Amino acid sequence: MATTAKPSPSDYTTEAQSIITSLLPGGLCADQAWHKLAALTDTVGNRVCGSPSLERASSYMLSVWQAEGFDNVHGENVTVPHWHRGNEECTMLNPRLGYRMQILGLGTSIGTPEGRPVEAHVLVVRNFDELAALGKAGQVQGKIVLVNYACDWSTNPVGCYGACTKYRGEGASRAARWGAVAYLVRSLASASIGSPHTGMQTYASSKAEDQIPAAAVTVEDAEALARMQARGEDVVLRLSMGAKNLPARQARNVVAEWRGRELPDEVVLLSGHLDSWDVGVGAMDDGGGLAISWQALSTLRALHWRARRTIRVVGWVGEEFGGIGGRQYFDDHREEKVVLVIESDMGAFRPRGLSFSGGEEAASVMAEVGSLLGGINATLVARDGKGYETDTQPWKAVGVPGASLLSENERYFAYHHSHGDQMSVLQPGDMDLAAAVFAVTAFVVADLDEALPKGDERGEGGKGKMKEEKERRTMRKGNAGSGLAVS
Amino acid sequence: MATTAKPSPSDYTTEAQSIITSLLPGGLCADQAWHKLAALTDTVGNRVCGSPSLERASSYMLSVWQAEGFDNVHGENVTVPHWHRGNEECTMLNPRLGYRMQILGLGTSIGTPEGRPVEAHVLVVRNFDELAALGKAGQVQGKIVLVNYACDWSTNPVGCYGACTKYRGEGASRAARWGAVAYLVRSLASASIGSPHTGMQTYASSKAEDQIPAAAVTVEDAEALARMQARGEDVVLRLSMGAKNLPARQARNVVAEWRGRELPDEVVLLSGHLDSWDVGVGAMDDGGGLAISWQALSTLRALHWRARRTIRVVGWVGEEFGGIGGRQYFDDHREEKVVLVIESDMGAFRPRGLSFSGGEEAASVMAEVGSLLGGINATLVARDGKGYETDTQPWKAVGVPGASLLSENERYFAYHHSHGDQMSVLQPGDMDLAAAVFAVTAFVVADLDEALPKGDERGEGGKGKMKEEKERRTMRKGNAGSGLAVS
Repeated sequence: MATTAKPSPSDYTTEAQSIITSLLPGGLCADQAWHKLAALTDTVGNRVCGSPSLERASSYMLSVWQAEGFDNVHGENVTVPHWHRGNEECTMLNPRLGYRMQILGLGTSIGTPEGRPVEAHVLVVRNFDELAALGKAGQVQGKIVLVNYACDWSTNPVGCYGACTKYRGEGASRAARWGAVAYLVRSLASASIGSPHTGMQTYASSKAEDQIPAAAVTVEDAEALARMQARGEDVVLRLSMGAKNLPARQARNVVAEWRGRELPDEVVLLSGHLDSWDVGVGAMDDGGGLAISWQALSTLRALHWRARRTIRVVGWVGEEFGGIGGRQYFDDHREEKVVLVIESDMGAFRPRGLSFSGGEEAASVMAEVGSLLGGINATLVARDGKGYETDTQPWKAVGVPGASLLSENERYFAYHHSHGDQMSVLQPGDMDLAAAVFAVTAFVVADLDEALPKGDERGEGGKGKMKEEKERRTMRKGNAGSGLAVS
Repeated sequence: MATTAKPSPSDYTTEAQSIITSLLPGGLCADQAWHKLAALTDTVGNRVCGSPSLERASSYMLSVWQAEGFDNVHGENVTVPHWHRGNEECTMLNPRLGYRMQILGLGTSIGTPEGRPVEAHVLVVRNFDELAALGKAGQVQGKIVLVNYACDWSTNPVGCYGACTKYRGEGASRAARWGAVAYLVRSLASASIGSPHTGMQTYASSKAEDQIPAAAVTVEDAEALARMQARGEDVVLRLSMGAKNLPARQARNVVAEWRGRELPDEVVLLSGHLDSWDVGVGAMDDGGGLAISWQALSTLRALHWRARRTIRVVGWVGEEFGGIGGRQYFDDHREEKVVLVIESDMGAFRPRGLSFSGGEEAASVMAEVGSLLGGINATLVARDGKGYETDTQPWKAVGVPGASLLSENERYFAYHHSHGDQMSVLQPGDMDLAAAVFAVTAFVVADLDEALPKGDERGEGGKGKMKEEKERRTMRKGNAGSGLAVS
């Protein structure tokens, strides 16, 4: 079936329904997204920047996309950091001799000197104010600092992340400034079964005095150490970390298209990131985002529909170290006519709709697109002026309309960056609905008579700030996701 | 305040309210149970049978109970198994080379030969029928067997445990019979963040051909291995386990009393088990049960109330290896006049009431006791004829009335026998309410004019069967806990 261009999203009711039907249980494309992602993650596992498995994953994706018959399947080089975790061990020497704590070093952390154990007394603080006060009092010198910042995750299971990221991201150098020998942070997590959660941290500078080893401990251990200190007990740990920052490596953003039938040089972009942390398999963060983007393209192909414009899927690399692949892609493609950038990086759970960033005119078109998703209860088109995801941020910053998936992601931070980020977190039926949101949105916007109007340029922000910006915005996203801050 | 004996539980409204008030926020005894348990678990950690830490825990308890001024504080020797986990490692060789699986060996499992790695192909089956069919077909010989039995934990978060225990308990010898070289079981868990859950298993005999190494894998890994096999991939693992069954050791049940003012030789017994598995700290299983029993005694002491009869707290050892301490205690004390045995071993969460086992007459008295707990919504007195817990089972089997805590324990099997069984699972306010249920029940029953009437003897069942019996009963408990099977 070929369609004729139409002036308004509301003219696409039939097409939208066909896409949705093909992704509902028993439909032509049902259950595919989850199983395709399972095959990737079961085969390749996790895909941390600089690892051979990330390269294998890129090759895997290009190969299956070629086999599926997409257009213009190719990789695009991106230089990414290469951080290697190495062996890690944290054992309590006092008060509970021999207790082996579950830890995960933070991305970009250095190891302990020559990977050998550091033994030191622990100082537990609740926040940076306490750290600074105790630092000034000379209490931090020679200590292992643990920041046990407690956010009420039970009432704010997504939003707390934004409130906590600075403790993971900046704490090591802050503690180093006061003479700490290592830095521990309470895992940023909405639930725990003795589970540490890793993530990126950033040293204030490359100077040795700003750099000490940094790791996440479990919520349970953070609370236990705080109690021990409150009882006046002397807490002593032996920490060894073999982490290393190795020379940067080449990785590849992966690209596939379903070329437009009339305006192939105009592009609607669908995306998720292919890289992950080196624990779990990165099924949720962000295999799911990539899989629903991919499934949207597969569905249009299965229906034999080509929109007027090209629909392109990109699997980013380097997201976990600061949106590197997204930035590189923007730098290489900024002259192209990109009509809409779509991304999912907050969990491909049951969709509520989209968060939209762009001008008023485009927003009203997008709201009409949202109405096409009434049959699956995903009509929400929330506006926060920016969008939450990292990799499409450069486009949005120059006024290109952007959308990201809003889903029932209240459990996202139970699994995020942990051994638990595996296929069991995701549900086939929910991923199909999310793919339907992406497919309908991409197809309609790519097919409309007129391109979605561009909004105002609003300045890009610093390159290195992209990831942190995402994390700050997560605070607001928690609200939008719950429908509290929707315009 | 001293009370005068009264004929009916309904005469104790004032006393019950005083106990409850002392345990509500701001009350004389509020928040103590949780913090006392935290001090124990932070200091001693977990307490597996035969370990030095279990002995330290017994000494710790006796010392704090002495200091608190209880009567007749003492330990009673129990011979317990001494199983030592040793180092464990399970790495995938194919299809995902080098993937390190999170595993936990099962209690009583032997290690791999000399602790060295066993490398073998994996056979995933869904249940014992499949295992037997494939065994007969010669497909099990030389394999590592994984039983991936899937129960719908989301709708049956407690009851599934009873349906799954045979796969943990009996699978190794069943697989060994068909020539398997090692046995893996999907963790018995209602939630997972990449978390393995251990537990006891039992070999069919002491013959070498019945004994192969046995371990639990995570739910996520079990599902992944099943998918790999379904794709026709050859799954190969390298498993090493240093587990050893060492000579039995002495441990100590710990005992403290608040002696009766008129009939000190008649006893109401409150209890939980002190031993735990060797992961997490055994806060929930079963530190919480012991802590609320202890807190009930502390509360009566703080109120300066002595009942007519003695109230005795026992912290059992050897529960995790089959109710050994409970059985030993019964054998040593069966001639005593024990009026009521109370136990908590399914989580000291927000209480719903009690599960009662005993005759009709006693049950109607207990229902009246339950009515005293209306102020904290814990009036439920469910009857299942047996009760669920292991350690008081021998008493109930000979007709002694028994009660166990019913609580909102839907999350129990998310943490059970895992690294996540830590203080964070329990809430101070909920533990206080559970302690109030125990204190009111114990005080009223210990103080009533007439002793709670004994029920009929119903045969004890085999000693070694106690633990399994508990697990089978868990199936029914799930229902009772949800109020579905309450008489």
